[in-house]
Amino acid sequence: MEFTAQLRADQECIERALKNYAAQWPDYGPLREAMTYSLMAGGKRIRPVLTLAVCRLFGGQAEEALPFACGLEMVHTYSLIHDDLPCMDDDDFRRGKPTNHKVYGQANAVLAGDALLTAAFSVLASAALPPERVCRAVAVLAQAAGPAGMVGGQVLDLLGEGKDLGEEEILQIEALKTGCMIEAAARLGAIAAGSTPAQEEAVADYARKVGLAFQIRDDVLDVAGDAAVLGKPTGSDQSHEKSTFVAKKGLAACEAWIEELTQQAIQCLAPFSETEFLRTLAHFLAGRTA
Amino acid sequence: MEFTAQLRADQECIERALKNYAAQWPDYGPLREAMTYSLMAGGKRIRPVLTLAVCRLFGGQAEEALPFACGLEMVHTYSLIHDDLPCMDDDDFRRGKPTNHKVYGQANAVLAGDALLTAAFSVLASAALPPERVCRAVAVLAQAAGPAGMVGGQVLDLLGEGKDLGEEEILQIEALKTGCMIEAAARLGAIAAGSTPAQEEAVADYARKVGLAFQIRDDVLDVAGDAAVLGKPTGSDQSHEKSTFVAKKGLAACEAWIEELTQQAIQCLAPFSETEFLRTLAHFLAGRTA
Repeated sequence: MEFTAQLRADQECIERALKNYAAQWPDYGPLREAMTYSLMAGGKRIRPVLTLAVCRLFGGQAEEALPFACGLEMVHTYSLIHDDLPCMDDDDFRRGKPTNHKVYGQANAVLAGDALLTAAFSVLASAALPPERVCRAVAVLAQAAGPAGMVGGQVLDLLGEGKDLGEEEILQIEALKTGCMIEAAARLGAIAAGSTPAQEEAVADYARKVGLAFQIRDDVLDVAGDAAVLGKPTGSDQSHEKSTFVAKKGLAACEAWIEELTQQAIQCLAPFSETEFLRTLAHFLAGRTA
Repeated sequence: MEFTAQLRADQECIERALKNYAAQWPDYGPLREAMTYSLMAGGKRIRPVLTLAVCRLFGGQAEEALPFACGLEMVHTYSLIHDDLPCMDDDDFRRGKPTNHKVYGQANAVLAGDALLTAAFSVLASAALPPERVCRAVAVLAQAAGPAGMVGGQVLDLLGEGKDLGEEEILQIEALKTGCMIEAAARLGAIAAGSTPAQEEAVADYARKVGLAFQIRDDVLDVAGDAAVLGKPTGSDQSHEKSTFVAKKGLAACEAWIEELTQQAIQCLAPFSETEFLRTLAHFLAGRTA
């Protein structure tokens, strides 16, 4: 299948599966609605798409990886809800819509995030895969999202506001805050397919490069992007006094860096066949405008 | 071993294990300190003690259940941190110490809670038990803590503030908010021991009765307890305008109800031998003063 058609098919498959999971949550006050509001808010589903693609690359059935892909997307969604809270980044808009706490209030936004994070592990545990693989998926996702991964990155990110961080410090924050989850997305696909350790490490490496390029693009778009296309105001890094790659190196050097990382990511796939989708995905993410 | 000695031995074993897990978290800003502050804040460890005791009842090695017990305690701790936040119950003291957000600020308190919840699943996944049991433990804990359990209960609890709820509504809130996790604690012990489904259901039933008695005692202590012994001010239910069992039924009826539930809990253990610890635990929790 051609890249755009496959991407759309996977995105639709993920949307349907997420909607089905959401329909099973009980209807206690505004909780399900608040969880669903952010979960179905038009995300690009990059991470779960990566999970499905890697599963396919290693000969697995993409549908078998769907619970891993959807669980990871729920964790990603919870992190956005909590990041947007007034005590964190205090953002009013996300993907062109008011943020969760703007609609449901702070208490419900905290709880909707908590519930999505917890439900993610229910979804992982429901996968129809050998229990060894499910256990490893739980371990990998919890490691990537926890204190040694995404949450650790968010703590350092908040701590760095208003400070002039060095490039190494920015790299560490981005690797933890964004990179770990993109890497986990690739690993979950490999785990679902029952890959070898070497295969899993190769796609983890691919994902780290793609993830960093993705984050540099994010910084670039925050300075030079179109707010209407992004669905949120630009300049938020500056208003939050965050050190960014663009501020450190300039736009041109960042563009060259994105290109270099994309080439390196593609080289990680050299040992494998039928890599066209993942190669095109790397270029697609590097060149995105939203 | 005599009850008090066994209880103390189990509590010490859990304290040590929790401390070891905490020592492995990375040192990103104040995150590990904030997580550890609440995790090691002198909780009574009722839930993990129950996990170990049930594992022992069904012939398992208590140490094998330790990762399940500690993971569950981390989830319990995260829920206390988030419940105390200004946008939730807005409490300043917990177990005689300033609440997490009072010490580390709201952003770090939200993130410390998020990190504890996530780390809990890392800890579960690390158990040296057959992967089928680990998967089931993940499913049971996520179900109990998630939107159909504890978080659902907290949403209903906040929604009920200032309203005159009926007894059925209070029962539902307490079953979700507190009961689900106490039931999960018993189930995790049974799962660790590789119990039969009938054995697991029997201790789940025991735990639901004990859990409800525990919660009614909580309401009683909030009215008639000693703030110095409790480590937090009494009268907080009234100041939050929460409907309680005591307000509905009066103190004497609540005392009788606690006694009845404790007897029912003990009856659930009738099919088993060596139940002395769990029988005494039921009385101990029903009669607690803190």
